[in-house]
Amino acid sequence: MVANILVTTEYVDDESAARLKKRAAICKLDETMSQEQLAEFLPTIDVLLVFSWPKQLSAENLRLMTKLKLVQNILAGVNQVPFNHLSGDVIVCSNAGAYSTEVGEYAMGLLLASAKRIVESHNSIKQEQWNFQRTMDVGSHVTMLENEVLGILGYGGIGAYTATLAQSFGMKIYAWTRGKRPSKLVKLFTGERGLDEVLARSDCVVLALPLTKETRGIIDSERLRRMKKDAILVNVTRGELVDEKALYEHLAANPSFRYATDVWWYNQGRESLKTDYPFLSLPNFVGTPHLSGPSGLATGRPVKLAVDNVLRFLRGLAPRNIVDRSDYVNGR
Amino acid sequence: MVANILVTTEYVDDESAARLKKRAAICKLDETMSQEQLAEFLPTIDVLLVFSWPKQLSAENLRLMTKLKLVQNILAGVNQVPFNHLSGDVIVCSNAGAYSTEVGEYAMGLLLASAKRIVESHNSIKQEQWNFQRTMDVGSHVTMLENEVLGILGYGGIGAYTATLAQSFGMKIYAWTRGKRPSKLVKLFTGERGLDEVLARSDCVVLALPLTKETRGIIDSERLRRMKKDAILVNVTRGELVDEKALYEHLAANPSFRYATDVWWYNQGRESLKTDYPFLSLPNFVGTPHLSGPSGLATGRPVKLAVDNVLRFLRGLAPRNIVDRSDYVNGR
Repeated sequence: MVANILVTTEYVDDESAARLKKRAAICKLDETMSQEQLAEFLPTIDVLLVFSWPKQLSAENLRLMTKLKLVQNILAGVNQVPFNHLSGDVIVCSNAGAYSTEVGEYAMGLLLASAKRIVESHNSIKQEQWNFQRTMDVGSHVTMLENEVLGILGYGGIGAYTATLAQSFGMKIYAWTRGKRPSKLVKLFTGERGLDEVLARSDCVVLALPLTKETRGIIDSERLRRMKKDAILVNVTRGELVDEKALYEHLAANPSFRYATDVWWYNQGRESLKTDYPFLSLPNFVGTPHLSGPSGLATGRPVKLAVDNVLRFLRGLAPRNIVDRSDYVNGR
Repeated sequence: MVANILVTTEYVDDESAARLKKRAAICKLDETMSQEQLAEFLPTIDVLLVFSWPKQLSAENLRLMTKLKLVQNILAGVNQVPFNHLSGDVIVCSNAGAYSTEVGEYAMGLLLASAKRIVESHNSIKQEQWNFQRTMDVGSHVTMLENEVLGILGYGGIGAYTATLAQSFGMKIYAWTRGKRPSKLVKLFTGERGLDEVLARSDCVVLALPLTKETRGIIDSERLRRMKKDAILVNVTRGELVDEKALYEHLAANPSFRYATDVWWYNQGRESLKTDYPFLSLPNFVGTPHLSGPSGLATGRPVKLAVDNVLRFLRGLAPRNIVDRSDYVNGR
């Protein structure tokens, strides 16, 4: 099959473009294109290769893409894809696994930063609000990871990689997952009751879930209350997994509970560092600006894996990471 | 042997005290004791169990301790012990290994906090100096630990534990050590040339050395220059291993080089958070107030191990962790 591929991002490097060109013609989406130009070539496109969803691919313009067969994402998650406006026979592929090492390392970084109170104590020294007596008091509230239970919600590539790192610290792993991956090293839980059990029994919890209609707001006030009062909750996949108001109130009321995140809530459809509540005034909150993904992108691997998958599809093989669209949209 | 033990710290819990009492009489050093009282019982003491070195045990009072046979430390390091004023036949034991897990976890926490730029980016968001474009730029300067070389200076309990954690991240370990511990998993280096080689070839370096007359200021301006321009240097044992002025100048001149420490320089003989240079104004400096030791102390294990060692000695067995006094003092 010789296809027309629309590339909507600058992250596709020359080497990857050259690999695609052996099998396809590449069009690049350009912000300056007129609606007339778009109307001319969008109907010819077979494959979309996307990073952030481009504004130009509105509902109206998607209706023009009558030949579209595959949407391949370079981001790991597909929650930005406007499933409602894509024809039912379009295959949508995530880039699951492409960032597992980067995001797994980041998860351990956030977990340790919270457990060891690194941000909080660094800033207290900076403000000259520290002395060695406080060290003796606070030192006894530093969390040791050894022998603690780490709950991992979502046991895909990121969750599994985080588990191997945490196991080297002597942590016991409880993983909550839909799939039935048998594992000797990890205790698996499923379903609503499994989720409640993992939350109640874990000393630390890492959120490694995709954002779907089922997982949006999965950590709400009730589930926060089920967790241990001095638990550490780490989020490395999507901010919207956690109910913003419930989390703020829980952190403010429970100073021993800690939240460390690399990902943020959405504001007008985009992840935003502006929050509705003053999280950064709380000593038990650590936040970084979604650095784990770009650190992966910088390696070139996510683009390479996305292009590999497009090439599989063009060779007539089943692509990997096909998304179950019913996870993202109600009805079809 | 029934002995008199002088306990100079509050950290010896009731259970440990009860174990000692089966073999010895315990005296507690009290800050309110008069010189007359001290002069009466110090000559009867066989064993000293110390945490920080107490002011009352001055050179003059040590001369009164004519029966003293053993000084057992609860701190891992013995650099506070006034070796010059102890009779040559007194055995001094460190508590090496008692904090390996706590300090090893802390070392990985500081390494990841620096590698992932957690403190720096958290504070930038707080000051509203961040946007997602910066995320893309800075994200590419996040350090991935996988496949990097970690140099560990000092391969005792802390160094070895840190190595096992770092290996799970896929790091290669170069260890600089005096002892000849053969190891399949770690490449060992010795001597001055070995040190220079580890520094030059490592992407990250963890200082896990005791502070001795040989290691004081071992990281000076010349050795900093040998390191990679974007290396990460982590210190978890003693601040005085690093030349303060040389480090400040190196960090100021090399913004990609990062230093993360839990331990500080000495001021009037005591570790102090007051530094001669404004380290906390640098974005490539992370500092915490020596939290790793107290986190270990809170587990009770260091006191238990120190008491175990005293009991070994009282039973006539060779105690563990006997310090080579020539490492700490010139001439005798």
